[in-house]
Amino acid sequence: MLKATGKTAEERLKSLGLTLPAAAAGVANYVPWAIVGTMLYTSGQLPWIDGDLKFKGKIGRDLTPEQGYQACQLSTLNAISQLKAAVGDLEKVKRIVRIEGTLNVAPGFTATPGVLNGASDLVVAVFGERGAHTRMIYTNPEMPIDCASLVVFWAEV
Amino acid sequence: MLKATGKTAEERLKSLGLTLPAAAAGVANYVPWAIVGTMLYTSGQLPWIDGDLKFKGKIGRDLTPEQGYQACQLSTLNAISQLKAAVGDLEKVKRIVRIEGTLNVAPGFTATPGVLNGASDLVVAVFGERGAHTRMIYTNPEMPIDCASLVVFWAEV
Amino acid sequence: MLKATGKTAEERLKSLGLTLPAAAAGVANYVPWAIVGTMLYTSGQLPWIDGDLKFKGKIGRDLTPEQGYQACQLSTLNAISQLKAAVGDLEKVKRIVRIEGTLNVAPGFTATPGVLNGASDLVVAVFGERGAHTRMIYTNPEMPIDCASLVVFWAEV
Repeated sequence: MLKATGKTAEERLKSLGLTLPAAAAGVANYVPWAIVGTMLYTSGQLPWIDGDLKFKGKIGRDLTPEQGYQACQLSTLNAISQLKAAVGDLEKVKRIVRIEGTLNVAPGFTATPGVLNGASDLVVAVFGERGAHTRMIYTNPEMPIDCASLVVFWAEV
Repeated sequence: MLKATGKTAEERLKSLGLTLPAAAAGVANYVPWAIVGTMLYTSGQLPWIDGDLKFKGKIGRDLTPEQGYQACQLSTLNAISQLKAAVGDLEKVKRIVRIEGTLNVAPGFTATPGVLNGASDLVVAVFGERGAHTRMIYTNPEMPIDCASLVVFWAEV
Repeated sequence: MLKATGKTAEERLKSLGLTLPAAAAGVANYVPWAIVGTMLYTSGQLPWIDGDLKFKGKIGRDLTPEQGYQACQLSTLNAISQLKAAVGDLEKVKRIVRIEGTLNVAPGFTATPGVLNGASDLVVAVFGERGAHTRMIYTNPEMPIDCASLVVFWAEV
């Protein structure tokens, strides 16, 4: 479990020593987030920084579970960046409603809940009670550009 | 097709000889359901009772299609339990809007629609017109703790 | 990129030489779309016309990437047909909020974003600014009746 200090989401991120990557544009003919009414939905977020994919390949073969956890954390940082790009101030986020994590895993690797905790732990540490989210774990046989993780956010804003 | 009798969802469940499992907490750092406005979303629900996984492994190899159907039914009973935990009375459920079923299948097993009917048939039998739902079927190569099925509900409450 | 002309979505479809298939019913005990408030959600749409599956098998083995692109386009035409069946007139569609594309791919095929552009390019060509959508790509090891693609729409109506 991550232990963050500070009152705002930005302060808590800083206390964890984490930096938000620049919000990436969609990599094709789509947009990275949409707001409908009070809900914001992101597209799938990769574990990259400035277009440089940091976690590639299958968890349980090319990557350790701990690296899978870190991949989910970085995908989540990118999702938080999209939130910030969309609403300007993370304090306007009322709640993270849902995290959907899609993982690139080796045959036989079923310990996926612990890996997706890389997303869940970060969201709870950063947003506190506003980070109480539902979630769904998927594994997919092949991922875009062989990324290790894709994370989608649904947030109430 | 399941044939239920009774006016309320609880009566129809009873007429089918089915019992709701205790609503399970999230197995990690997340919550089992969230309500936003008039919509309720569950996390993925496993085919288990009191933490005891009843359907494990790949449908079409370790499990028959009929067992896969039963797995989807049990995942759905757990989703209904979450609905009840959230709103107290199943009569407050206006509509099941969507079922997302993720299945653990053997290579070459494509008869997934019949398997996910374990979820759809139950919802229609129990909720009647309020059970008219959209759905999406996924298969995933590896599932959390090798469960046979995960079912997600979106409901209008 | 597709180049459409015309003011309405129907005119733009026609300018692309594309015809909407008849809106298919759900293939089991569910419905093809649901409206909740101002949001419409479709079930997964197959690449078929009148029940005749046009794209079957794994992209990167049984089908070329270009055929995968066409499969996504046909799944999307079916999703647009569902939209039209639901609201009567495509001009009532305020926005395509999200496209979820699930692809049937061969081992090692990771060029999925270009394949799902078959959906994204069409939506942007037909709906213009109203087609600015988020998206998520999944791959699944086995698909219903071995279809090449399933496309889900979330639309604001």
